[in-house]
Amino acid sequence: MKIHEIEIRVRYPECDPMGFAHHGVYATWFEMGRSEMLRQSGVSYKELEERGELLPVVDLHIRYKKPARYDEVLRLRSTMAEVTRAKIVFEYELLRGEMLLATGKTVNACIDREGKLRSIPDVIFDAFEVEKQRKAGGR
Amino acid sequence: MKIHEIEIRVRYPECDPMGFAHHGVYATWFEMGRSEMLRQSGVSYKELEERGELLPVVDLHIRYKKPARYDEVLRLRSTMAEVTRAKIVFEYELLRGEMLLATGKTVNACIDREGKLRSIPDVIFDAFEVEKQRKAGGR
Amino acid sequence: MKIHEIEIRVRYPECDPMGFAHHGVYATWFEMGRSEMLRQSGVSYKELEERGELLPVVDLHIRYKKPARYDEVLRLRSTMAEVTRAKIVFEYELLRGEMLLATGKTVNACIDREGKLRSIPDVIFDAFEVEKQRKAGGR
Amino acid sequence: MKIHEIEIRVRYPECDPMGFAHHGVYATWFEMGRSEMLRQSGVSYKELEERGELLPVVDLHIRYKKPARYDEVLRLRSTMAEVTRAKIVFEYELLRGEMLLATGKTVNACIDREGKLRSIPDVIFDAFEVEKQRKAGGR
Repeated sequence: MKIHEIEIRVRYPECDPMGFAHHGVYATWFEMGRSEMLRQSGVSYKELEERGELLPVVDLHIRYKKPARYDEVLRLRSTMAEVTRAKIVFEYELLRGEMLLATGKTVNACIDREGKLRSIPDVIFDAFEVEKQRKAGGR
Repeated sequence: MKIHEIEIRVRYPECDPMGFAHHGVYATWFEMGRSEMLRQSGVSYKELEERGELLPVVDLHIRYKKPARYDEVLRLRSTMAEVTRAKIVFEYELLRGEMLLATGKTVNACIDREGKLRSIPDVIFDAFEVEKQRKAGGR
Repeated sequence: MKIHEIEIRVRYPECDPMGFAHHGVYATWFEMGRSEMLRQSGVSYKELEERGELLPVVDLHIRYKKPARYDEVLRLRSTMAEVTRAKIVFEYELLRGEMLLATGKTVNACIDREGKLRSIPDVIFDAFEVEKQRKAGGR
Repeated sequence: MKIHEIEIRVRYPECDPMGFAHHGVYATWFEMGRSEMLRQSGVSYKELEERGELLPVVDLHIRYKKPARYDEVLRLRSTMAEVTRAKIVFEYELLRGEMLLATGKTVNACIDREGKLRSIPDVIFDAFEVEKQRKAGGR
């Protein structure tokens, strides 16, 4: 199943003097991954935000196994692992070819513009259902 | 005259595989310089923005003479060179010790939240006058 | 002629509290543009760097006309405008649809790992010739 | 005990369209914190790296409790929690005044320029001992 996979070409300023992609930039790549995943399931994060439904990251965990380097083309696999009224959990695998470079996990909550906690929006639940059915019907 | 000088310690992820501070990060350093300069003249950019007076950069020019490296402590000198109803012009010198590493110039305009052009706010004019008098009476 | 055009999807952390792509990130986009342009002309910047031929930016000029926003898909057109023994000049146009958002210009020099000036590598000259012929024969 | 605390002024491009410091930038702040902590214990990360002793992050975990905003001055407390031959563990607390904004933990390993695992350098062990004694004798 290829649908939640994005390609990432490592940019020059994303790399540090070790010559490796800096560990902080993985957070941005994961964000791109879940944003594209939501888009493919019919959810525009931009529109959510315009409606005042913000989805800040409340927990981030990354394990770095092998370094990524400038100009390499990587693949990021994102999975929506869990959705409840309180949070959305995504998991990530970053690969170069078949080599696993890193794994990660994020937890997003939902707040309004004043910072007050809200329920995870229905459109996310719907997207999650679409995902589950896609997987059930998938391989 | 030390007042518009800030110290910058070069951060690890600001440096690229050449081992130099990436040329793009200078734009951020200049922004820190003019923000501190305004603060010292009694203008909070944050408050301007909260009042809906945004000051986007409309022109940026940087000349890079010598590279900066990780962990070096640099000095950035910012000067408010010109203020009119249409724009604010800042000039910059980046130094390591007495060695000039780069020079730069930015032009900021003023817009509201809808993107409509506005006059440069009075508080900036006042700050500019303060600057001129400080210089006239200076050293 | 589409060949020196890349698509850029504006990333979330590239945008600032104004909601616009931060002006500093354009330097990175331009770098992506010229890197892809070189690649299409048969030059790998990564390989140049591995051979100790570094191409630092010595001059950067950007004019910002209209803001870019999160999630927008932009087109960046890069042109190799001039190549001499001392420098390479690139010019850029950033567009959203047919709307011109920004123009820019960079000058790169060539140095070795010790920071000593070198001639612009032959492969760049060759790429420039390829470009000129492509344009002459173009459209 | 103030010694492992650094002040961080939130920069404009570190903030995203929500108006909050982007979650990815915390990784850079933590890196600044442990770098300063090592420096105060007599270890220059820059010198380690020049000797070919690289300390990449192999595990990063951040919990975000309250957002940080542009121009705020934050305090980051870094603690060297554990040092073995295989890894260094740091823990972090990010505060605004007495309000805890985020906590974090990083694990660093040691590799050489070819990417081969090495023992954690002796200077780090020594620094850790200095830390323990400082704490034992503390306040």
